[in-house]
This record gives sequence, C-alpha cells and structure tokens, in this order.
Amino acid sequence: MSYMHGGDIYTYEGMLDFSVNINPFGPSPAVLEAACEAMKTVGAYPDSQCRKLRQELAEVLEISGDTLIFGNGAADLIFSLVFAERPKKAILTAPSFLEYAQALKAVGCEINYHYLEEKQNFQLDEGYLEMLTGDTDMIFLCSPDNPTGGLPPLSLLQKIAGKCEKLGIRMVLDECFCEFLEDTEGVLSQTAICEYPHLFLLRAFTKMHAMPGLRLGYGITSDRMLLHNMERVRQPWSVSAPAQAAGIAALGGADRVKKTRIFITEERRKLEKKLERMGVTYFPSSVNYMLLKSSYDLFALLKEKKILIRDCSNYEGLKKGFYRIAVKTGEENQLLIQALEEIYPIKKRRCEVWQK
Amino acid sequence: MSYMHGGDIYTYEGMLDFSVNINPFGPSPAVLEAACEAMKTVGAYPDSQCRKLRQELAEVLEISGDTLIFGNGAADLIFSLVFAERPKKAILTAPSFLEYAQALKAVGCEINYHYLEEKQNFQLDEGYLEMLTGDTDMIFLCSPDNPTGGLPPLSLLQKIAGKCEKLGIRMVLDECFCEFLEDTEGVLSQTAICEYPHLFLLRAFTKMHAMPGLRLGYGITSDRMLLHNMERVRQPWSVSAPAQAAGIAALGGADRVKKTRIFITEERRKLEKKLERMGVTYFPSSVNYMLLKSSYDLFALLKEKKILIRDCSNYEGLKKGFYRIAVKTGEENQLLIQALEEIYPIKKRRCEVWQK
Repeated sequence: MSYMHGGDIYTYEGMLDFSVNINPFGPSPAVLEAACEAMKTVGAYPDSQCRKLRQELAEVLEISGDTLIFGNGAADLIFSLVFAERPKKAILTAPSFLEYAQALKAVGCEINYHYLEEKQNFQLDEGYLEMLTGDTDMIFLCSPDNPTGGLPPLSLLQKIAGKCEKLGIRMVLDECFCEFLEDTEGVLSQTAICEYPHLFLLRAFTKMHAMPGLRLGYGITSDRMLLHNMERVRQPWSVSAPAQAAGIAALGGADRVKKTRIFITEERRKLEKKLERMGVTYFPSSVNYMLLKSSYDLFALLKEKKILIRDCSNYEGLKKGFYRIAVKTGEENQLLIQALEEIYPIKKRRCEVWQK
Repeated sequence: MSYMHGGDIYTYEGMLDFSVNINPFGPSPAVLEAACEAMKTVGAYPDSQCRKLRQELAEVLEISGDTLIFGNGAADLIFSLVFAERPKKAILTAPSFLEYAQALKAVGCEINYHYLEEKQNFQLDEGYLEMLTGDTDMIFLCSPDNPTGGLPPLSLLQKIAGKCEKLGIRMVLDECFCEFLEDTEGVLSQTAICEYPHLFLLRAFTKMHAMPGLRLGYGITSDRMLLHNMERVRQPWSVSAPAQAAGIAALGGADRVKKTRIFITEERRKLEKKLERMGVTYFPSSVNYMLLKSSYDLFALLKEKKILIRDCSNYEGLKKGFYRIAVKTGEENQLLIQALEEIYPIKKRRCEVWQK
C-alpha cells in the first residue's frame, strides 16, 4: 500500500523534513533516557494495563485512571475505536487526518463529508451542526485542526458535543496538537468527558514530545463500556515497555512543553510575516504547522532543494496546490524561507520576461 | 478487561516467572544496544514499510521481501489478519492461544473447536482433516503447539494445507516457537508459501529473542492481496523504530539461537526426568515449555513460594489442574523443582496421615 502521510524520510533520504508536524526540538533527553533504561525490562511482556503511566497521567490530568486507554500511537486507537463501535454512518470534515477515513472504510462505514471552505479559511462553523442527524453513528473532529491549523470555536464544539449526546452520536475529538496552542483554554478539556459520555478525546505523546518512532497515544472517555469494547478488539500488549517509560518521563517535562509552545508561537508569527512579504498564500494557524496554497509545485521545487514538505493533494477537500509546512527551529525555518525566496522571485522574473 | 495470559509480573511482583515461555537468557546485548541506538531516531516516524528489516529478513529466509508483513508483536497480526478477512466460520484446536478466539469473536465469527485429547497427549491427528469443510473460512494451528508443546506431524500439516488450498480456507500456522525445536525440519518451512497461497505463517521475535516488551512479529504469505488488505485495516506505523532495529540485530544472532535450542532441549530433558521421579504428570513437549497436570493447586502453592506459573484453566479444552511451566536456566529450573518437591512429598505425607 502506498504511503500517504508526511514524514516519509525513508523514501526521501537526507532531506530537511518540513512534512511532519512534530516538536522541532526533538524528544527530551529525559524521555530518551527513560526509554533506554526500559530496555532492561523488554525481556518481559509490557504491562498490558500501563498501570504506572495510567496513574501518573491521571494525576496530571486530574481525572480517574479508568477513563484512559493507551495505544500504539493515537492512530492505533482510531482503529480500535472504529472496530469496537462498527459505525454504519459517519461524518468527517474535509480536509482531515487520513486515518479516520481509513479506519471507517475498514468496517464498511458510509462516510459523509462536511467540506470546510477555503474562503472561510477552512474554519468549522455552525453549519456543521445540521450534518448531525439521528442516523449518524460517529463523527471525527480535530481541534486544533490538521492539516489546516485552525481552531474550531470552543462554544461550537460544546454545541456539537451536546447534540451528539442528544442523538447518541459517538464524538471523537482529536486533540493531538492541543499542547502547541498559545492558549490551551480554547480546547475542550478532559473534564468535558463527564458532561458528555459520548465524547472520546484522542491525544498523543507523539507530537509535543517528539516520539513518533516510539508510538504512544491515549484516549479519554467516561464511557467505560467503550473502553472495555476497545480492549476486546485488540491484543493485550499494544504499548511497548519503552513507550510506557517514555510517556512517564514526558509527563515530567511540563516546562519544556511551555517553552516549546511559546517558541512555536513566535516562530509561526515570524514565518507568517515572511510568507506575507513574499506573497505566499497561507491560512491562519494556531499551532506548529501551516497550510499554504501556491500555483507553483512547491513539493517538487523544494524537493530539488532537499526540503521535504507535505503535498496535501491527497486530502479529501483539497487539491494540487495545497501544502503543509511545519514550524521548526529558527535556523530551519530560515532555510525554508530562503528556498521559497529562490522559487518565488525567479518565477516572477520569468513572468516579467515573458510579458515583455 | 481481565488479563488472561502468562507473564503478568505486574500483578505478581517480585516473583520468579515460569508463566511465560521466553528464551531464559533474555535479549542479547546486541539487540538491546541496537534498540537503544535507535532511540536517536524516535523523533521521526518509523519506516512504515520496515524496509531494512524486511530486506534482511528476506535474505535470511531466502524468500521475496514482498511476502512479509510486520506487526506490533505477532498478536497484532492475528487481529489485522482477522479484520482483513472477516471470516464467518473458523476452526480452532482446543487448547490453543487465546488471542485467536479473541480476534475471531471481534468480527462475530462462529468458532468451532477441534478438541485435542488428553489421552493422545493433545497431539493433532488425521481426524482433524474431517473438520475442514467447504463452509470453513479460516483455521488457526500452532506448530509447535502452545500450551501443550506438542509438534503436529509435518505430513499432516501438509495434508491440511493441501485441503485448505482445495477448499479455499485461509490457514494460519503459528510458528512462533519453531526456533526452539531441537530439529527444525519438523516444521512447515517458509518455502511452503509458494505451494499453498492460502497459507499464512505467523512468527515472532518475541520468544527466541526474548523481546516481548519491544513488540515485533511477522507474517509470511505468497498472497499479496491478503497483505494489502491487512495494511488497509491498520495504521501505517505499527512497528516502532526500536523494534525494527532490534529485529535487524536479532537476525545476526544465529549462533545464540542455536546454543539456546541445544540448551533448552537438554534442560527440558532434565526437567522431564525430575518430574517423572516426583510423579508429576507432564505431556511430551518439543520446546521451551511443558504442560503439567496435577491434583494440587500448583498455581496457588507455587505462588506462596514466589514462583509464578501459568494456570491453564481458562483455556478452552483444559480445566483446573493443568499448568504450563517454562524451561528456564538450570538454576531457575532447579528452584522450581525444589519448590515442587516441597509440595509433592508434603501432600503425600498428609495423604498418608489421612489414610491412617
């Protein structure tokens, strides 16, 4: 099967990777050390219940440990959730993370798309509520959104959650990027699970703690029966011992999270200014990646310059001409800007020559 | 969900674990070093196609790389396989590994059991062939068998594979313990996949390379469409970067595998002699674990002595009184024997007292 995501550094070796939206500072030394230390224990099966990690995360989130489920990355949980529920009809926003549709198709679910409009900067609006009907079984939303970087209004998410509760719709809210927000008050917090038992919050250690290679994600819901059903459709040992240890260590890195968040916000603003100056179309983002629109084939042109970005043409609701870039370190962002500057003015000059 | 397997050292802390059937020498330093070294790469997504591991394993097995699929442990692949095929009717031997039934139940598959008989030492025989009918979609067999340790005759496996081919039955042959056999010529080799496209061989790094905490298993089949369908029902990043690196390193440990195999065979024979002397009923095993039968509650009695064994009463086809022990290092095996000696004679004396 062809690879459809960002971060394919194995096909495109030796390139500067802007295609994947991960903390540019990489994993913390404490996380790596804990994972290496856990190598001493890999001769035994990992704890199928992730007890230590569960307890520590529950304390940090101030929720009950039995509302948590851990997976081999958040993507793993998307599949477990869909296999456990076997929805017949689901609604996805377009564009959105490809694995939602992948999992739904695997159980033969009918997918209806709510297309986010470019002229509204791909922002979710109240019109979405009309999509939710009695025959809807499941919805996936992403807040902050991927690949657009937009943040759906909290009040709208609450209205959606309320309607899902009323209609018995499973609401999956993917918050894997919420830790990158300048102000995290804009997201539906984990305390909402008590008010909305149909709500399933999806989160990951992957993005902020930069450990996609280790695989660790988690879900939060007050629907214990759902968690039980998810355990029934998967093996008991989904989360490796190093991933569990890395997760525990990551929880101790609150300062690093805060610093990253501030840094990313500043760097994104710098990038916005530079893109604006160059005349590159971008959409407002609240996190560590941005959606661009260009009439140039930026993927191909930047690839020539050894820079990998995410060509978003395979997203439902997008087409050729949309690209996602990550917000990385200052130095790396500068390299991207330089490369874009080489693309944009050259093309402009060519146009001028042509016009004469 | 309650834990139903061996190796639950998290519930039973600080015990000598005979409940799990893993290479008693633990993971090799080379494997651990490679996994730790791979920590440097966990800031990137793992290669979704496991390219390096695939190439090296294909060379070792002398098969084409595109006949391989890797998973987050072999157990992960059992679920992917069942989700991809969605069988309506399956046949399992009883007793057998619990996750076969777990995965089949997750898709609502009807399970028919072929009970292996105690009086035949739980050995698979030709009678099994009669179970295979036109309405069977999938079968699971384990060679060498778990939890019995028996080895189904190769000629019988070939007959079964032939009949499965004729009737269009997916044959899953779990060979996760085949590397522990004194003589590996008794198992259906990977070259059989060419002759039997319905055959899916399941193997793991977990057992011989003692890395259950890292999660790495693989499957072999010549049915590329099956592999494609399995990829469609799971996330792209099932195998972590450290697991891929550990797998590659493990492939370099052929000498260690050979030594372990010889050692295990000798130790098992010693154990057999000692069990015989004590009058403990055991069933003939070809690998690194043995099924015992006892009228004593060995699980509870050994737990008092800080030894954990596998109570097999939750296996379909077994009942209270069956226990699985691992073959471990000489010193560890001696501790188990001593503990058993304390149980058996005491009970005997008690009986004698009672009989007076």
